[in-house]
Amino acid sequence: MTSPDSPGTRLDPWFDSYAARAHAMRASEIRALFSVANRPEVVSLAGGMPYIGGLPLEELAEMQRRLVMEQGEVALQYGSGQGDEGLREHITQVMALEGISAHPDDVVVTTGSQQALDLVTKIFIDPGDVIVAEAPSYVGALGVFRAHEADVVHVAMDENGLVPAALETTLARLASEGRRVKFLYTVPNFHNPGGVTLALERRPQVLEICRRYGVLVLEDNPYGLLGFDSEPLPALRSMSEEGVIYLGSFSKTFAPGYRVGWAVAPHAVREKLVLASESAILCPSNASQLAIRTYLEHADWQGQIKKFREQYRERRDAMISALEEHIPEASWNVPEGGFYVWLTLPEGLDAKSMLPRAVTARVAYVPGTAFYYDGSGAGHMRLSYCYPTPERIREGVRRLAGVIEAELETVRIFGSGAQGPGDSVDFPSPDLA
Amino acid sequence: MTSPDSPGTRLDPWFDSYAARAHAMRASEIRALFSVANRPEVVSLAGGMPYIGGLPLEELAEMQRRLVMEQGEVALQYGSGQGDEGLREHITQVMALEGISAHPDDVVVTTGSQQALDLVTKIFIDPGDVIVAEAPSYVGALGVFRAHEADVVHVAMDENGLVPAALETTLARLASEGRRVKFLYTVPNFHNPGGVTLALERRPQVLEICRRYGVLVLEDNPYGLLGFDSEPLPALRSMSEEGVIYLGSFSKTFAPGYRVGWAVAPHAVREKLVLASESAILCPSNASQLAIRTYLEHADWQGQIKKFREQYRERRDAMISALEEHIPEASWNVPEGGFYVWLTLPEGLDAKSMLPRAVTARVAYVPGTAFYYDGSGAGHMRLSYCYPTPERIREGVRRLAGVIEAELETVRIFGSGAQGPGDSVDFPSPDLA
Repeated sequence: MTSPDSPGTRLDPWFDSYAARAHAMRASEIRALFSVANRPEVVSLAGGMPYIGGLPLEELAEMQRRLVMEQGEVALQYGSGQGDEGLREHITQVMALEGISAHPDDVVVTTGSQQALDLVTKIFIDPGDVIVAEAPSYVGALGVFRAHEADVVHVAMDENGLVPAALETTLARLASEGRRVKFLYTVPNFHNPGGVTLALERRPQVLEICRRYGVLVLEDNPYGLLGFDSEPLPALRSMSEEGVIYLGSFSKTFAPGYRVGWAVAPHAVREKLVLASESAILCPSNASQLAIRTYLEHADWQGQIKKFREQYRERRDAMISALEEHIPEASWNVPEGGFYVWLTLPEGLDAKSMLPRAVTARVAYVPGTAFYYDGSGAGHMRLSYCYPTPERIREGVRRLAGVIEAELETVRIFGSGAQGPGDSVDFPSPDLA
Repeated sequence: MTSPDSPGTRLDPWFDSYAARAHAMRASEIRALFSVANRPEVVSLAGGMPYIGGLPLEELAEMQRRLVMEQGEVALQYGSGQGDEGLREHITQVMALEGISAHPDDVVVTTGSQQALDLVTKIFIDPGDVIVAEAPSYVGALGVFRAHEADVVHVAMDENGLVPAALETTLARLASEGRRVKFLYTVPNFHNPGGVTLALERRPQVLEICRRYGVLVLEDNPYGLLGFDSEPLPALRSMSEEGVIYLGSFSKTFAPGYRVGWAVAPHAVREKLVLASESAILCPSNASQLAIRTYLEHADWQGQIKKFREQYRERRDAMISALEEHIPEASWNVPEGGFYVWLTLPEGLDAKSMLPRAVTARVAYVPGTAFYYDGSGAGHMRLSYCYPTPERIREGVRRLAGVIEAELETVRIFGSGAQGPGDSVDFPSPDLA
């Protein structure tokens, strides 16, 4: 059966065999651009890649050698589906820095916290169920939600994070419409892509509103320890054990190459997460888990996080001062931690349609459309300062300023080039982590 | 809403929030037993853990050190969703040993081939779709199929593997019933758990039957290079590029601790696999991938496989001679490669109900029920000879003989203890890989 809506039919002999969910899986035009954007001559302000060059590679190399020598028969073997017990013990100590009191039994180790996102969505979401999420939201989460055929309803943020009154209004409306809201997905600290942090006094309010509406909270917290000037705020999980699933990751505080993240969940949910994870991958990599356990045992990991914070603060400062100097006609927030600046373009500009010209000018960013389920947000872009050096960041912003200047000139002559909401969310990719 | 069918309601505040698929995810009684079976005093003939002690750990340790020293900024960073290009190139060379001609672009690296199984099922299976599979079948695949709410229809095997005439009859019947068959799941070489290999002359027949019925073939081949006495047979994928998705793994030929497997799929399917994998985990671990790439580049991996084959042959011989000596009243096949013996108990015995007594007698196996979607197969068990030493294998079989003896005595006095088909398939776990 061929129809105009199924352009793949003639090329793909298995086109009619796919599951319903697979038809939502398609590569976006942005992905194609990013393959160009990864060339060395392009300054990428797009990716969320941490600054691995800041790690003590020599020390890590020797740890790796000793690990295989001394524990090779464990490191190279299958492990437990829930994850290595020693690592889970260390993870509870990492989480204690944000006020979380958890037992190693509550922790499920995953292949990056992305897998935890996928598993939670898999066990909670039937097609058509609603997930409430900040506007904008992490592109990788939106991709998972779409793959599981969820409907995402965005709730406003301001400079203090998710707005409790807006959350309440949205949940009340959805309840009155008889919609089934399964969870609130939130990145409370140094939001991706918004850059803002949920204020301390709002945290119990958000939990209380969700509790009243019977909505689980999915707290995604890869950046919590990466604040520049202040101690970490208490996690939502530290205020509610039964109402929150917490996701953590070593990708931003140590290294993403091991793909080790984790979930902490109420007991019965945790059991299902383990079964779902065993079905998906049997067990997380022992080699990766023991490498991280060894690092936490023998290296000064808290000192390393402090170094990362200083490096990222320097890069944030470079980006903000370059924006002030070169693109004063745009507006942005000044993040107090994490990796991202959320920039609002001057009226009439469209970050998505502008991207090919930016890549031609050898600078890349992620258009705001990637972070909204309905593809709106074209007036915004996410700029990352985590990976390039301060000098490259300044060069990238200079190039971006030239592109914006030219766009503004075009708009002055021909009128607005802004497009309406797009029709596709981008699937997550490592470029957008 | 509480009902007698929902025993979790009172304990689990989120019981009513789960997706339909999550209700099928439950721990089996077998899992609880295996936590006991992993104690050192128990001889486990249950697991599919390879003999890691046979690896050159000192050489591997030094490779790991050099890898982090020389390529740390890549190994510890995010990578491509499809997997490292250099590793994919090496994978094509590994597959060439089984007659497969593939381009690195056709390969998708996954977190063990278990993840590839999950991704293929995710993109093809809507609830109620049919998957055809050998009787018995790999427990980890059945768990994935159940998690995606597939219906599995088993097809008979004999000593030459899947029976083409039985496949044809089954597909014809399903077609006449209007059932939607999405793929044939098959382990053609040294079958898990059956131990048999699909005969050369049957291979094109199976492909031709599937082609006629429009059924994709999912070829799962972790053991193909582990034949004891003969060269590998050509893979199904070597005979059909468009009709087969091929799954490979380094877990049995090298080490499962890295969790690196792969899929080779027709072009359009491969694109969807990459998108589904990025949604699930962003990207496979660069640390793991580069460790394996380094191993393939610098170590004598083919010589290592040869060593493994000799070690596993010795263990197979130990198991078969112990069975002949101690349990002549049972029957079994003599596998020519791989890890498993499929044993048929004397009439009247039930491997599942006998398992607690076996564990008490300090020997463990996997009851046949784990390998049938409807939980039948209680008259069989899978015995693995991959992990314990020959001496431990002989001791394990001796203990098993004692248990069987006692069961037979009970049956002689009280009649058959055999139960009907169970009602649950076991979820995969590392113990059953």
